[in-house]
Amino acid sequence: MDEFSIIDKYFSGIGFQHSLVAVGTGDDCAVLNVPIDNELCTSTDTLISGVHFPLACSGEIVAHRSLVANLSDLAAMGASPVGFLLSLSIPEVVDSWLSGFANRLSELSKIYRIMLVGGNMAKGPLSVTITVLGTVPRGASLLRSSAQVGEAIFVTGELGKAAAGLKVVEEGLKAYESLKAAYLSPSPQIEFAQELRRYASACIDISDGFLADLSHLCDDSNVGAEIESRHIFLGKALRSYAGSRALDFALYGGDDYELCFSVPFAFVESVLELAIVKKIRISQVGCTVEKRGISLIKGKTKIAAEIKGYNHF
Amino acid sequence: MDEFSIIDKYFSGIGFQHSLVAVGTGDDCAVLNVPIDNELCTSTDTLISGVHFPLACSGEIVAHRSLVANLSDLAAMGASPVGFLLSLSIPEVVDSWLSGFANRLSELSKIYRIMLVGGNMAKGPLSVTITVLGTVPRGASLLRSSAQVGEAIFVTGELGKAAAGLKVVEEGLKAYESLKAAYLSPSPQIEFAQELRRYASACIDISDGFLADLSHLCDDSNVGAEIESRHIFLGKALRSYAGSRALDFALYGGDDYELCFSVPFAFVESVLELAIVKKIRISQVGCTVEKRGISLIKGKTKIAAEIKGYNHF
Repeated sequence: MDEFSIIDKYFSGIGFQHSLVAVGTGDDCAVLNVPIDNELCTSTDTLISGVHFPLACSGEIVAHRSLVANLSDLAAMGASPVGFLLSLSIPEVVDSWLSGFANRLSELSKIYRIMLVGGNMAKGPLSVTITVLGTVPRGASLLRSSAQVGEAIFVTGELGKAAAGLKVVEEGLKAYESLKAAYLSPSPQIEFAQELRRYASACIDISDGFLADLSHLCDDSNVGAEIESRHIFLGKALRSYAGSRALDFALYGGDDYELCFSVPFAFVESVLELAIVKKIRISQVGCTVEKRGISLIKGKTKIAAEIKGYNHF
Repeated sequence: MDEFSIIDKYFSGIGFQHSLVAVGTGDDCAVLNVPIDNELCTSTDTLISGVHFPLACSGEIVAHRSLVANLSDLAAMGASPVGFLLSLSIPEVVDSWLSGFANRLSELSKIYRIMLVGGNMAKGPLSVTITVLGTVPRGASLLRSSAQVGEAIFVTGELGKAAAGLKVVEEGLKAYESLKAAYLSPSPQIEFAQELRRYASACIDISDGFLADLSHLCDDSNVGAEIESRHIFLGKALRSYAGSRALDFALYGGDDYELCFSVPFAFVESVLELAIVKKIRISQVGCTVEKRGISLIKGKTKIAAEIKGYNHF
């Protein structure tokens, strides 16, 4: 079976068809229309077997985590998904794995209205690189670099669940389904982020870990931050699994694919209302300050936060 | 050294700055402006060590071949380069390799006026995925699927040189520098292709091998083709190295990154003139016909061409 037959068999005609795509898969390039008054957002992310996911992961899980990691970058800009390119490297053709991979990709493509517009396939160590393309009204994208001093800092969702879920998967535990799901099949905040463009001044998605990503946002915006530990929501499953380490999972764990964003205080009420309407959990966890660095407030003590994210090298 | 430090050290500030890029590297997404009346072209390609290039390849060569393979896809559409995203997976940090890789990428970025707008880095088997983005006037992209019966078929450059060059590299021969260069540091036909939009009805870049790629173009256009062997230019170096196998290299060898395109006969003179002005070698090698399949005319015999491209699986 050559790569063209594999692509035909598993990937032809899967997923969502987007009206902005003039030419999809099958030509030398895909061709997209970007509406007048819109800009194009693009990002790429690679997941490698044994590095970004356990070696034994199913095709469904690899597809899910690869596409969501990229969709989350579109969400962080407040962009609307249009299309994605897929580079898949596999050591051998395993029908069940490829079927699972393509089926999950197709499902998510329809849910998030993003069209497979191109890609390539090669024989090699298992690795998936996806590049996403989306649109955003001109000048309206949510940057990392535009937070101001004296704004409220929010996060979506339940931080730390995904990192705990990875541990649960690695330990082979039967329980803690909600933690496992947070790691294996995360949801990007695509829809909420588009509404957030009206209120947030800066935004980043949480992939390296909350404090690591917050520090990127603060550094790029030339501000500092104070975070109140007690305002970080720790869910029941996380507390049950992690006990006294629950907060550490929330502060340092990666793979959440939630959003961290800053909001001028005048818009705090509006953001809280938006979250209720959209049924998205958000937590106001601190505020931006002039003094650089991130301080953690635990009870009556304030300490400089240690920033640790995943380091590949 | 973490991946952020590596990116800072080797990749920050390299290469060309493009005026259509509103937000480059460093945020969750890059943000590009696409001019009114233009469309966006995008393509992605992965090169894996030991599969797409020899294990011992220098950083310069890997950078060169990765970017050009992608630029060639923009050329095949007649698109103008704007930006590219880079996903780099490396097993370890080797300063000389990374410096060479980044420096060559920077040089080519300036030559082809394409800006590094994002990417990521991970520890893993050596592999490079690049996604390119370019613009083309709305509706004017050169598709594979729009050749008509009774058109002239052209190719640019000297086919087969790159495939012969790979053999020379593998055999460790000292001579045949021009063949080695064709494989190690190919040139995409970016500028010529943009002029070609005025005349060509269909176009594809030659990466799998001339006949394999011509058959993609013909299949997608629902036409056949007759190719006259004697019109395929075989350069002196190729004939010297390959002897009686020179034509086989030209017909079946991959990695040329030249263009194959069809032209209505009314425009043949104009295309020949354009090639003279642009100092690009082109050869009129045959014509499209109604009967599906590709026929090879050698002297007085006409035979059905065998299509063989590289097969990964």
